[in-house]
Amino acid sequence: MSSNLTARAVTEFLGSCFLLAAIVGSGIMAERLSGGNAALTLLANSVATGAALSALILTFVSISGAHFNPVVTLAEAIRGRTAWRDVPAYLAAQVAGAFVGVAAAHIMFSLPLFFASRHARIGAGLLCSEFVATFGLLSVIFGCSRSRPSAVPFAVGAYITAAYWFTASTSFANPAVTLARAATDTFAGIRPADVPAFIGAQLAGALVATSLFHWLAPTRVDPMGERHS
Amino acid sequence: MSSNLTARAVTEFLGSCFLLAAIVGSGIMAERLSGGNAALTLLANSVATGAALSALILTFVSISGAHFNPVVTLAEAIRGRTAWRDVPAYLAAQVAGAFVGVAAAHIMFSLPLFFASRHARIGAGLLCSEFVATFGLLSVIFGCSRSRPSAVPFAVGAYITAAYWFTASTSFANPAVTLARAATDTFAGIRPADVPAFIGAQLAGALVATSLFHWLAPTRVDPMGERHS
Amino acid sequence: MSSNLTARAVTEFLGSCFLLAAIVGSGIMAERLSGGNAALTLLANSVATGAALSALILTFVSISGAHFNPVVTLAEAIRGRTAWRDVPAYLAAQVAGAFVGVAAAHIMFSLPLFFASRHARIGAGLLCSEFVATFGLLSVIFGCSRSRPSAVPFAVGAYITAAYWFTASTSFANPAVTLARAATDTFAGIRPADVPAFIGAQLAGALVATSLFHWLAPTRVDPMGERHS
Amino acid sequence: MSSNLTARAVTEFLGSCFLLAAIVGSGIMAERLSGGNAALTLLANSVATGAALSALILTFVSISGAHFNPVVTLAEAIRGRTAWRDVPAYLAAQVAGAFVGVAAAHIMFSLPLFFASRHARIGAGLLCSEFVATFGLLSVIFGCSRSRPSAVPFAVGAYITAAYWFTASTSFANPAVTLARAATDTFAGIRPADVPAFIGAQLAGALVATSLFHWLAPTRVDPMGERHS
Repeated sequence: MSSNLTARAVTEFLGSCFLLAAIVGSGIMAERLSGGNAALTLLANSVATGAALSALILTFVSISGAHFNPVVTLAEAIRGRTAWRDVPAYLAAQVAGAFVGVAAAHIMFSLPLFFASRHARIGAGLLCSEFVATFGLLSVIFGCSRSRPSAVPFAVGAYITAAYWFTASTSFANPAVTLARAATDTFAGIRPADVPAFIGAQLAGALVATSLFHWLAPTRVDPMGERHS
Repeated sequence: MSSNLTARAVTEFLGSCFLLAAIVGSGIMAERLSGGNAALTLLANSVATGAALSALILTFVSISGAHFNPVVTLAEAIRGRTAWRDVPAYLAAQVAGAFVGVAAAHIMFSLPLFFASRHARIGAGLLCSEFVATFGLLSVIFGCSRSRPSAVPFAVGAYITAAYWFTASTSFANPAVTLARAATDTFAGIRPADVPAFIGAQLAGALVATSLFHWLAPTRVDPMGERHS
Repeated sequence: MSSNLTARAVTEFLGSCFLLAAIVGSGIMAERLSGGNAALTLLANSVATGAALSALILTFVSISGAHFNPVVTLAEAIRGRTAWRDVPAYLAAQVAGAFVGVAAAHIMFSLPLFFASRHARIGAGLLCSEFVATFGLLSVIFGCSRSRPSAVPFAVGAYITAAYWFTASTSFANPAVTLARAATDTFAGIRPADVPAFIGAQLAGALVATSLFHWLAPTRVDPMGERHS
Repeated sequence: MSSNLTARAVTEFLGSCFLLAAIVGSGIMAERLSGGNAALTLLANSVATGAALSALILTFVSISGAHFNPVVTLAEAIRGRTAWRDVPAYLAAQVAGAFVGVAAAHIMFSLPLFFASRHARIGAGLLCSEFVATFGLLSVIFGCSRSRPSAVPFAVGAYITAAYWFTASTSFANPAVTLARAATDTFAGIRPADVPAFIGAQLAGALVATSLFHWLAPTRVDPMGERHS
């Protein structure tokens, strides 16, 4: 990762921006067109999100690592693959990019820049879902980046398309995404009051996955933060 | 395969757990949202299962070989690529992981931990389907791992997405999956009484595929169990 | 291609058999479940066929070349990449495999072994479609195998999924497939009387593509029939 | 890029022709079959277009670079990777191929060769959408071709499938495509009067992406126009 931090932060901003535009925009389009059939809406939303995520990782991975997700950045810092001094810039860029992406989707679909979601997402089932979704996402990233880094973009896109369906929460699995989705009262929205519990479950899932893979598939680290599997 | 047996068994457990969570969870979500349209339910279920399977194989293949399936483990033992002494741990991990995965799906969707399926799956057509599905699955694994091992995750995911549609049984093709799906009275369930015949047909299909590929595409084996194509 | 002709013919038989089981079986399943919505039926049919085709090519390409299609075998013979003396065995295996695949789908879905289709497919639009579909299929094979042979399985699967939708005939593009689909009175069927014109259009499309690529992207040929791009 | 200009222009013509046949043809088929459900129509249209685009790029990339899009050709000329003297032939081939592709779709579906669209596509939201869609498309091409050129066909296909959903305009992102889609009064059409603003927004998005990546991920250029990342 030889790029300078400014370029990498801009990249994290851009990628998070497009990721949220894809999540929120495809939800709006799918809900408008599906005539009330929620399965069709989620099918379009999940396929569009997974495809966009694969394309975005392929596009930006060589510049910033294509995290687009605070728990990925934190886990990579814990594993010694991202420098702790770079973490604040990554997190700020991800959150800012996510909100700008929501606004971009709203502008494209002629909606207000931001408007708070009223979509209640509460209950133990949904929090377990976010734990499982984030645990699984980091497992996929750790396992696949260890043995076949070039396949990570495909593995992550496929995993997210599936996780939209097999978790009860439709798999947010990303604190920046969760925050920004509170600012859209459309298909992808989440009520602001429900955000903290979602993020808590995501952090817990990420922590358990990081610990497990530390034992299961240790990565050697050298002082330069380079990867050795 | 230099990892120790404990790490490999944990990996088989985790992979089987996520595989069943994906199969059962996406079936629950799809049935809830599709308003009674069974084609839409199966479309979501088949896309989610295939995508999850590709992601899981990419994630875990370098640790345990990513079998997640007793007939795959048995076939690899017959072909000399998995040591017979490792087979019991693999099979136990797969079955345990499968049941835990079903429970995880039920927790996420706020259902009982386990509840027996009442979904009857009987008849010669379905048993022929399981024979064909398993014969095909092992053919894909044998053929693709011989010439392009790096493409196995994609080939297996694509095959299963297709086989959900082209077999009358929606292609279980896995004894651990079949056992665990008896413990869920949801879209993916199978009545416990129908499980033995399904597993019998799967074993038969696997045996014929193993014999055929032994002749069609022989694999050299050395005493260390390493692969030579 | 060092395999002996028997193994290669068996491989062409098996691949064509699974291809037809996938086309016909997924059509039956999709029509049964979709409640009369033809778009949903074709969506499942096209995704299942494309995914199955990618998996089958990955599985069998290193043994027989994974033609599964008489016009591909003929074109490869014209280009000097398949020996003319092998062509009769390939064609016989493809046609026999295709019919056995239709029978296998029928057995799985508890239908008669064979029953003639009554699905009329006539008119200039459909014949133009078969010309375009086959021209495109061979272009994809020629172009992609020249520059990136390892991507052919993905390119062909993606092309066929698309061509089911963008041609008016749903893109048969294969004489063995066309013959065998006359023996099933299900979603994928074609009235026997309409078969000859379809095959004629396919041969014409294949011939034009072969001539065009002979000029556009010439392949050197040596006396052993090996590929040099 | 050693091929002569005639072969490359023919390739751009063929690829643009198939791209438009795929876009327009799959739209016609999907609208005919979907019984008025616009989400199902767009799902088929987006999957078919993305799959076709991936297959076409894989097929033709080694001959002409597989631009099929005037803004891609212009951006590659600005970046010094396509010679300016070749640009007129590329653009002419792309526009001619696009119109012939529309005619081919019309012939296959037994419609008039050309007939002007009456589909109004106006408003700031749609123009912002075309800006975003084209900015994103060029970002994907620049970013992915810099670090992993072999993944460009997959990244572009996945991006377009997603962008059909997450932009309000369904992501034309291509002036040749936009011009030709004015000549079809079917699902994919655009009223001729709305074409200039769409093309203006596309050029703006392309220009901003080109400038941004010039700073973010500079490419060394030598006098032969060869790529160095």
